[in-house]
Formats: sequence, C-alpha cells, structure tokens
Amino acid sequence: MIHNIENPPRMVIALGGNALQTKGSTGSAAEQLEVVKKTSRCIADISMSGYEIAIVHGNGPQVGQILLAFETASDVTPVMPFDVCGAMSQGYIGYHLQKSLRHEFNLRNKSVPVVCLLTQTVVDDADPAFLKPTKPVGLYYTEEEAKQLEAEKGYHMVEDSGRGWRRVVPSPEPKRIVELDSIKNLWNSTIVIAVGGGGIPVIERPDGVLEGVDAVIDKDLASERLAEDIGADVLLILTEVDKVAINFGKPNQENLDHLTVAQAAQYIEEKQFAPGSMLPKVLAAMRFVRANPDKKAIITSLFGAMDALDGKTGTTFTFA
Amino acid sequence: MIHNIENPPRMVIALGGNALQTKGSTGSAAEQLEVVKKTSRCIADISMSGYEIAIVHGNGPQVGQILLAFETASDVTPVMPFDVCGAMSQGYIGYHLQKSLRHEFNLRNKSVPVVCLLTQTVVDDADPAFLKPTKPVGLYYTEEEAKQLEAEKGYHMVEDSGRGWRRVVPSPEPKRIVELDSIKNLWNSTIVIAVGGGGIPVIERPDGVLEGVDAVIDKDLASERLAEDIGADVLLILTEVDKVAINFGKPNQENLDHLTVAQAAQYIEEKQFAPGSMLPKVLAAMRFVRANPDKKAIITSLFGAMDALDGKTGTTFTFA
Repeated sequence: MIHNIENPPRMVIALGGNALQTKGSTGSAAEQLEVVKKTSRCIADISMSGYEIAIVHGNGPQVGQILLAFETASDVTPVMPFDVCGAMSQGYIGYHLQKSLRHEFNLRNKSVPVVCLLTQTVVDDADPAFLKPTKPVGLYYTEEEAKQLEAEKGYHMVEDSGRGWRRVVPSPEPKRIVELDSIKNLWNSTIVIAVGGGGIPVIERPDGVLEGVDAVIDKDLASERLAEDIGADVLLILTEVDKVAINFGKPNQENLDHLTVAQAAQYIEEKQFAPGSMLPKVLAAMRFVRANPDKKAIITSLFGAMDALDGKTGTTFTFA
Repeated sequence: MIHNIENPPRMVIALGGNALQTKGSTGSAAEQLEVVKKTSRCIADISMSGYEIAIVHGNGPQVGQILLAFETASDVTPVMPFDVCGAMSQGYIGYHLQKSLRHEFNLRNKSVPVVCLLTQTVVDDADPAFLKPTKPVGLYYTEEEAKQLEAEKGYHMVEDSGRGWRRVVPSPEPKRIVELDSIKNLWNSTIVIAVGGGGIPVIERPDGVLEGVDAVIDKDLASERLAEDIGADVLLILTEVDKVAINFGKPNQENLDHLTVAQAAQYIEEKQFAPGSMLPKVLAAMRFVRANPDKKAIITSLFGAMDALDGKTGTTFTFA
C-alpha cells in the first residue's frame, strides 16, 4: 500500500497483553524485552508502509507486579498508591518499546524519533464504576487479612475463585486525555507511545487539581478516546486472534471479516463477546466508527496487522 | 525581568533531591507530592517570567525504593534490572511533576502543556567508571550474602560505614541523549520534563542496539549535556543552598556571587567542593560555559531561583 506522502493516514494502535509478554512468562524484564522486540518489528513494518502512528499499550500484569512488590516489601518501604504504580508501569513498558522501536527503524535506515509520553486520563468521579469495583489487582490475602484491609484502608476485597481474597478496583470510562496537546504536537514528526495502560487514572477536582485514583482504565477504550480526540484515520486494535468471532470456541464458530455498528450491537445483545476480553475491543471499535462514520476500525492479531491493512484478514468495523 | 516574547530565552533546570522529598521523609508518595507542589510553584514563576523550560530531576531515593521493593519481594515477583527501575522512577516523579505543574499554570491562567518524556542517556562502555563502581544502591546485606551476590550475579559489593554490605554501581559520563529530537520538537510549545535521574543508562552496541546497563548517571552532568545539545541559553542548577561556598561549614566560609571557569578549576584543585554533592554541580556549570562562552550557568536554591535570575543571589558561572 502506497500512501500520500504529503498527508499520510494517521493511526492509533492498541497493543494487547500478548504484544508485551508471552503466556507462562515469569514476568522478568528480559522476557518482556524479547517479546517487545518482535512487536516492534510489526509496528515498524506498519510505519514503513506509510502511516503516522501513536501506540497505546496495556499494563495489567506489569502494574500488578509493581503493586505486588511494594505490598510485599511494605515493612521496608512505603506501599505506592495505584496511580503511581500505573505511572511506573508506563515507564517500564514505554522504555522497552521506545528502545526496541528505535532500533527497528535504524535497521530500516529510517530515522524517526520514538518517544513515550507519560499520560494521565481523566475519569469522572461520578462514574458508576466507582460503586462497583471489578478489576482484581495485587496480592492474594486470607479472609481475615482481607477484612482488616477493608476496615483499615477502605479497599474492596472479593473472594477470587478459591485462591484467596483480592483487592478489586473500579474500571471507569476514559473521559479526557490530559496530555493530548503534547501528543498532537509530536505526532507529525514522531512515533508516540502514550496513554499506557489506559493512562494514569485521575479525577479533576472542582478547583482544577488532578487527583490520582485507585482505578484501572480499559486500554482499548482509552485508545479509542485518543484516536477520536486526536483525529486518527484508523483505530487498529491488536490482540491474539486474527478476527472477531461469534460462537467463539464452539463447533459453529464464525470468524467475521466485517461488522457494522448495528451488527456489532446485535451480537453484543446476544452476549457473543467476553467481558474484559473481546467486548471492550468491539465497544472501542464501534465507538470510533460511530464518531467517525467515514473512517474504520480494525481488530486483528499483531502478526496479521499488515495483511489486515491490505484487507486480507482482520475484522473491519465501519459505521454502516 | 521582561523578555523578548518572540524569542524567549531557553533554560534547562536541574532539580536536586530537596525539590522532590524533604529530609526525614518516609518516602511515601503523598509526602513527595506535597514537596513537588511547592517546587512546581517556583518553576511556574520562572516560566511566567518569560523562559522556555526543560526540567531534569534527580531520582536517587526513588530508584533506591523501587529496587528495594523488588529485591525484598524477589520470592514472589522477578527483581527488575537497574535500567528498568530507572525508567519506573521517571514515571513516578514525572507524573507528580507534570500533574502539579499543569495545575500551577492553570492557577495563573496560562495554558501551557506540560509533559514528561521517558529518556535514555547513552554512556560509553569503555568509561573508566565501569572499572570502579561508586554509587551505593538497594538493600544492606550481611557479608555472607554479599559474597554470594558477587559470585552469583557479578555485583560489586562494598562495606558501607558499619551498616552492612551494599551493592555499588558505576556512575559513567553522559555522552548522548537518545530522545533529544523529541525534546527539541516539543520545547517551543511545551514545558518538557526529561532525562530524569540523568536518563535511563544505556550503552550503544556496534550493531546499534541500545542495551540498558546497571549504572547511575549524575543528573547535574546530564542536565548540562541536555542544555548544551539543545542549545539552552541558561543552565540553572537548583540545590539546597543559595550560593556555592568555599571553606564550606568553616568559620571562614565565603559564599561566592560569581565564578569563572579558571577560578572554579582552582577551587576544585583545592578540593573545596564535596564529591557527589557540590562538585558535580560545579563541574556541570563549568562545562556549560566552557562550551558556550557567551552564556551563563547559575547554581542557587529552589526558592532563591527568581532572585538569582535577577542577579540578586546565586552563584553565576561565566567563561571569563
């Protein structure tokens, strides 16, 4: 695909967990870096085919590790709050991505700056998600410890499938990306990594102060927020499968090449997409084409991305 | 001071440890945020007086805490290597700074983007510092544990003033700031926080791959590297004292208003400045004016900065 060089199409790429770590990884930095190197090859290929790119990544396992380390070490150093752990995870993952991507461009004799911007995402403190925390984070505790944490720290603790008690935090909607201006300023000249893990979750107080909150923002919905607000031409959501499917995992599984907003809404009603997995991706893709009826969103696999942009695989979302 | 609005002077500010944490702090994130708020007021005042600003901060205590947490929790989650801990500390501190600074500008009805860029700094793997590690980091160990770490991980361990054995890492010279292009691209429009903790230390392999190394880069020397390479007009190094002094702490202490490169070199020969404290600041200021004989560097306190820019306090370095 050859694009208009004067006015290249602009794309927000959302990277799933498999773009950063393999299943069964010990969670070591060395293992992550190896996976990120492969991911960077795919992203460099996409960039070389003529797109301007901003990259959003997940951070679930990483922010969990950081919280776990501080919780375990609480006798020797203060436990870091959730927003700070999120900021740290942006540092960790952003560093690996920007280092590896820069090298891939060097290999292709293309000099293009790559940089990670720390990013905050504003959520609404009246978001109903705050009334019903759902995302498990950090250590497993005994019931007694769990009750103590509820009493002392106001944590919400739930029993997690027989493995013990765990803290859950809310997953509110991303409303606004605080550093949007800077991403816009850099986008023309630079591959930008931003809104990592959905962004560091903050609420905006009436006096304008941004205050970190204990929450996890869905990275697919946050990538859609970015794509919409920055005026991207394409939202590309990368995951483990080449196409969105209905009747997933059943004998009559059907992989979908194309979905309109109306079709996707119908399948959501039929509960075809798993919450916390394919559902937020489908919702993000729908939102993007609903806000931009002349544009498209694609859900596909990391390694299928180049083919998907040529229309050979992937599930393409259009408004109608 | 009123500056040419068309062409405002450009300044790199190096923030010392006291701009982030108070002495005797438990190291909690809440305490750091309170200190950072005060620091942000000072920086916003400097910006309002007509400077374009890039901010470099230290990270000694923070990177130590992160390493400590992962070392302590090594039974439950892999220990993160030193470069990754540095990247995490940029996330932690950059988030606090960019959040607080943005609020200070809002209070002043000035809409100016503020963003932290993750930054790598290239060091030379032939730097003699690698032969003589000097910077203590992380946990204290018994002699037996220390010997085991030396054998197993190749750490350099030293006995630290009767408190136990501690790992030491080298402090090589900053040679090149990898993300310089992005800092340059943003600087005209944005307050940029970059090169935190002197930058994530990397070496450049012959094949161009950047590889993280276990090292600490002096943040004052790194801020000088940035100021020089980006073409700053002023290098402002903020610390705990209003002026550089000779015979420091003695009855004949003399606070200095002005130093030339030759005078500073003479005082260094007399061992007037403490290594690891005032010495790297003086060296950074000397380097900057040696490379830019028509420009100046200033060493002063955070709260004296505005007066120092008006020539009322601080120690100003000029070439001659």
